[in-house]
Amino acid sequence: MEQQQMKKWVRFEHAGGIGFGTLEGDAVHERQGDMFGSSEPTGRVFALAGLQLLTPTEPTKVIALWNNFHALGAKLSLPVPAEPLYLLKTPNSYLAPGAPIRKPLCDGKVVFEGELGIVIGKTATAVSEADALDHVFGYTCANDVTVADILNRDASFAQWVRAKGFDTFCPMGPVVATGLDPATLTVTTTLNGEQRQNYPISDMRFSVQQLVSLISRDMTLHRGDVILCGTSIGVGSMKPGSLVEIEIGGIGKLSNRFG
Amino acid sequence: MEQQQMKKWVRFEHAGGIGFGTLEGDAVHERQGDMFGSSEPTGRVFALAGLQLLTPTEPTKVIALWNNFHALGAKLSLPVPAEPLYLLKTPNSYLAPGAPIRKPLCDGKVVFEGELGIVIGKTATAVSEADALDHVFGYTCANDVTVADILNRDASFAQWVRAKGFDTFCPMGPVVATGLDPATLTVTTTLNGEQRQNYPISDMRFSVQQLVSLISRDMTLHRGDVILCGTSIGVGSMKPGSLVEIEIGGIGKLSNRFG
Repeated sequence: MEQQQMKKWVRFEHAGGIGFGTLEGDAVHERQGDMFGSSEPTGRVFALAGLQLLTPTEPTKVIALWNNFHALGAKLSLPVPAEPLYLLKTPNSYLAPGAPIRKPLCDGKVVFEGELGIVIGKTATAVSEADALDHVFGYTCANDVTVADILNRDASFAQWVRAKGFDTFCPMGPVVATGLDPATLTVTTTLNGEQRQNYPISDMRFSVQQLVSLISRDMTLHRGDVILCGTSIGVGSMKPGSLVEIEIGGIGKLSNRFG
Repeated sequence: MEQQQMKKWVRFEHAGGIGFGTLEGDAVHERQGDMFGSSEPTGRVFALAGLQLLTPTEPTKVIALWNNFHALGAKLSLPVPAEPLYLLKTPNSYLAPGAPIRKPLCDGKVVFEGELGIVIGKTATAVSEADALDHVFGYTCANDVTVADILNRDASFAQWVRAKGFDTFCPMGPVVATGLDPATLTVTTTLNGEQRQNYPISDMRFSVQQLVSLISRDMTLHRGDVILCGTSIGVGSMKPGSLVEIEIGGIGKLSNRFG
């Protein structure tokens, strides 16, 4: 797509319907048409405070990277991957900004992982690195929630999909921001107001361009699909009532309470 | 849901639209309404031979079991799992009956795995084993196609989702059959007409009831979602031009050519 203007796109529920628009200050300017293509204002403007935001897109899939930051890899003495290592989040895990992350029925520590999400804007099959950003619509914040204790409790099969796939385990939002340079972004995560993560996207092993290009060689990426870039140091567990906030300058703050 | 009648449900494309109906002999009797609930005949009847069948449902997710058959576990000396071990197939992998399985860009042997698919009919969250079949609509045939060489080539991260997630790697169909007792079913797979798999569903480690109940404790299952029960002995690789056919008595035969 052409060079995107800097805009913040939201999806929301209003009066029983679903709408989308751009966030300007505390006001949402509703638009009609195609969020990823051509759209025009409806003329209706809503106060953000009065809207129930939804996940910023309706992905056909959300891909989540493992071991994609040098700092976390160094801290955990992880080997350097030769290629992007990833899993899928389940659709039942997708969660709107502000909605509660529910404690699963199983036991085990539930950890937050603050991450950058790449939002695809154009169907991508085997695109080159040079063309990759042309297929990116924008960026969002995400929380790749995980029951850490499940991951390796079966020695023969690492349970990545299950540990990260419980209902409500993938909060995303509050917006998709367009027109940003991802290499300049910083992710911060606070737990009950205390900062726990603060890391630069420039520390990624595989850049946004590489991720989109390499993953699109395996599987076609569709409009609204999201690639979670992986997390870095500072992840930790949540207690019932914990408030987790993931903020990326230029995008906004994704807030969800646990339990 | 109430005791299902024995029926074979198909989805199809016709004159630019998508329809559904029941297969009776070589004729498809179109219906309108809700395939999972209440529907009625439209009066239109099509010859099966003239229709392009689609995947029998539009799943929000397809869950695929690993190591769920005693015979394969014994052959590979796999440990006995304490709980169902599973991954997700990607939506870009869903493939209609008769459509070609495409060779991915990567190198490596591409193997077929003939499997039974459980099709969910009613939203299921933490259902008991006793109530599990009440949430099953019916059963279909599936091919859990896999690039075997990718699975373990990174020692730190088993790439299940990627190895099984390439475009066209999840053929399903040709029908969803209702009113069957899954424990009586047998899966056969032929490669270019030669039988390669022939195994009974009664050999599963976790039964249909256990799979639906246990997985629904982790994640809500929705109408149209599919659980692939895992495969047993006899899987093998396909060469360009290979025809793979997976047949389950009472359901039908799923045929797809590779490459």
